[in-house]
Amino acid sequence: MENISTQGFELNGRTYLPPACPVAVICIDGCADEYLSVSAAKGRMPHLQSMSDAGYRGFVRGALPSFTNVNNSAIVTGLPPSGTGIAGNFFIDPETGEEVMMNSSKYLRADTILAAAANAGREVAMVTAKEKLRDILSKDLNGIAFSSEKADEASEATHGISDVEALVGKPKPEIYSADASVYVLEAGVALVEAGKADFLYLTLTDFMQHKFGPYAEESLDFYEALDTQIGRLLSLGAAVGITADHGMNGKNKADGSPNVIYLESLLKERFSTDIRVICPITDPYVVHHGALGSLVMVHVPDGFSETDALKAYIDSLEGVTETYDREQAVARLELPADRIGDFVVLSGRDWVLGKTPDQHDLSVLKGGLRSHGGRYEEMVPMVLSVPLSGDYVRKAEGDPRNFDIFEFTCNNVSAFEQSGRERKSYAGV
Amino acid sequence: MENISTQGFELNGRTYLPPACPVAVICIDGCADEYLSVSAAKGRMPHLQSMSDAGYRGFVRGALPSFTNVNNSAIVTGLPPSGTGIAGNFFIDPETGEEVMMNSSKYLRADTILAAAANAGREVAMVTAKEKLRDILSKDLNGIAFSSEKADEASEATHGISDVEALVGKPKPEIYSADASVYVLEAGVALVEAGKADFLYLTLTDFMQHKFGPYAEESLDFYEALDTQIGRLLSLGAAVGITADHGMNGKNKADGSPNVIYLESLLKERFSTDIRVICPITDPYVVHHGALGSLVMVHVPDGFSETDALKAYIDSLEGVTETYDREQAVARLELPADRIGDFVVLSGRDWVLGKTPDQHDLSVLKGGLRSHGGRYEEMVPMVLSVPLSGDYVRKAEGDPRNFDIFEFTCNNVSAFEQSGRERKSYAGV
Repeated sequence: MENISTQGFELNGRTYLPPACPVAVICIDGCADEYLSVSAAKGRMPHLQSMSDAGYRGFVRGALPSFTNVNNSAIVTGLPPSGTGIAGNFFIDPETGEEVMMNSSKYLRADTILAAAANAGREVAMVTAKEKLRDILSKDLNGIAFSSEKADEASEATHGISDVEALVGKPKPEIYSADASVYVLEAGVALVEAGKADFLYLTLTDFMQHKFGPYAEESLDFYEALDTQIGRLLSLGAAVGITADHGMNGKNKADGSPNVIYLESLLKERFSTDIRVICPITDPYVVHHGALGSLVMVHVPDGFSETDALKAYIDSLEGVTETYDREQAVARLELPADRIGDFVVLSGRDWVLGKTPDQHDLSVLKGGLRSHGGRYEEMVPMVLSVPLSGDYVRKAEGDPRNFDIFEFTCNNVSAFEQSGRERKSYAGV
Repeated sequence: MENISTQGFELNGRTYLPPACPVAVICIDGCADEYLSVSAAKGRMPHLQSMSDAGYRGFVRGALPSFTNVNNSAIVTGLPPSGTGIAGNFFIDPETGEEVMMNSSKYLRADTILAAAANAGREVAMVTAKEKLRDILSKDLNGIAFSSEKADEASEATHGISDVEALVGKPKPEIYSADASVYVLEAGVALVEAGKADFLYLTLTDFMQHKFGPYAEESLDFYEALDTQIGRLLSLGAAVGITADHGMNGKNKADGSPNVIYLESLLKERFSTDIRVICPITDPYVVHHGALGSLVMVHVPDGFSETDALKAYIDSLEGVTETYDREQAVARLELPADRIGDFVVLSGRDWVLGKTPDQHDLSVLKGGLRSHGGRYEEMVPMVLSVPLSGDYVRKAEGDPRNFDIFEFTCNNVSAFEQSGRERKSYAGV
């Protein structure tokens, strides 16, 4: 690791100062803070506890909607959705009127920290659990980018690496598994050990969090497995920063069935059959959530005249917590005006919003619905291996964001080193 | 403890089933969840970790405004502010037009769980750090009620107990101290040990949290001292439930000065000099916060015609996150219509709202402002000594509230005991 570049670089209005050690930013998809607290209390996350002791643990505010693509795009650019253009997993393309996935890097309106770090001389690797994120997060990246979901398909020409399974030492995992996430961290460790990367973004999948609460034995085993890999990254001398794209909450009635407002059905019945509700949580991984989340977009037909009545009606529904027209949503939620609905609607901690009953397959939701997308999945953990230093003390006490994580992970180490203090060695912890 | 009453009782639409052991509900004033996480990671809260391991730790949603009187009133009644009538520490009495403290039990519109438990045969004790809470929380209570602030003034006739300092074994603490809170828990332990109480509400002060963040050595020492007393309650066989009235966030600019919107100044300049802004955080303990919090009430004069323009103007201010008229506030925030302003305004995580610069003495805020009152201090921890059982598993996964804490602490123990499992002994932990 003697040749790690420490050249600073500017991107999207910030200056990044990468330290002379491997940098690993980890996004634990769907990691509501209580997963960490409970796993730690159960003695299953000793390395996380060690980081929280010697470094920092606190809360950061994610971007809304609290969905995966939205927040991963924000994290790799350091910008809110108004800057990235990514306001959901799924949207109506205003140019075509079609409902499409926002999975392609052509939709990303900003350059990434990963590409910029590579251009500044770092050996960059982006490993994601979900293949859906690969294209968008590896935009213009001169480096390594692959998913654990399709680890076997990685090739030098297209992914910057081949033979991933040999490097990690095990075959690619199933996507609907704990191992889909653990594999991402194992790959990160292997890349650092092999000297193939010194600037990593490792982003997991929330399959486990959708399925299990913090006290489930499956969840505790999962977090213990993550913690083991976090420990290996720390032992390798990496500066580690951990955050999440969004939290996760139960969304069920007392009888255990999903607590859904079928908003499109309600609005079609009362206002116009041409009203469309878009669920921006929609993605190829419906087993997680049945495309039900706590924020939806409402599109009304051209010339629709009952906007005030519609807004008042939505506001009156039990379970709805916020209703904004486009202009308000842009101002309040930092959203791109051309990629959202005429209205943006959020629901409470234990409520989700959907289209019509026939458009959501609840049979996939075994054991009840856990989901996200709204205000109550906005606050997520930030854990750093190095204690806050210099300006970052004050910054962490203000309104830090999950998409500040690269700046915190890089620049705070530089600030700490300037203080003349010695970095804690995590070797052997 | 052989004569503890287990007679159930009904109150405010709920049934309470007190278990055959001492019950201690603790409200750690201003306890943002990260105080627990950081103190635990530092090894300073072994009993909390033991509870989180063998029992339960998760999040509950407090009442808004996220202030002390509001949430303590909610906790002792099991009702939101719409039911308690307590919507702040301070309000304009609509009958007199005067700005007054909401410290008297005459303002409380519901009966308390404490009084009802005493009537059902429990030996009840309410101990508060702040004298301001004593009257309201001890409404109609046939039991013990005193504050650590005025522990020396307690007498049998008025407080249900005398010689508190002898019982606790030390003189009353200073109110602006860590000990003001620790003393409350010490008193609780002493009351259980002496057989004087078997149903306790112990509510602390947030002086320390206003002054120190989670990593400050003073804060770690404080939480360690609380943990020691929690351990003593557990050792005595008590069913312990811990929650908070509200969280706590830094509210400062980059230069360290308070990040204030002086809303009354702005509105008087633009609309009417008769507009009044009320800061419902206001209480006798201004050293904590300078009467600056993240929610204020706006009162406009009779016949004021520019309500739409005023609301739009407030909404446009940087740092404002929510603006509601009275009707919306009642519906969205569960508030009593006659005890709030014509408008209710909330600010963001690192912003506070005030009246005019000359009405807030910032010189008392040494080391910067940490405060609460808004949406980002709404979610607080709930920690239980007994694992979730029966209906409470599902209830905790829904939208549990901090004012469900007595039901969780009592009824979940009964549900657990019905499951036939054996309760963990915390003796000697």
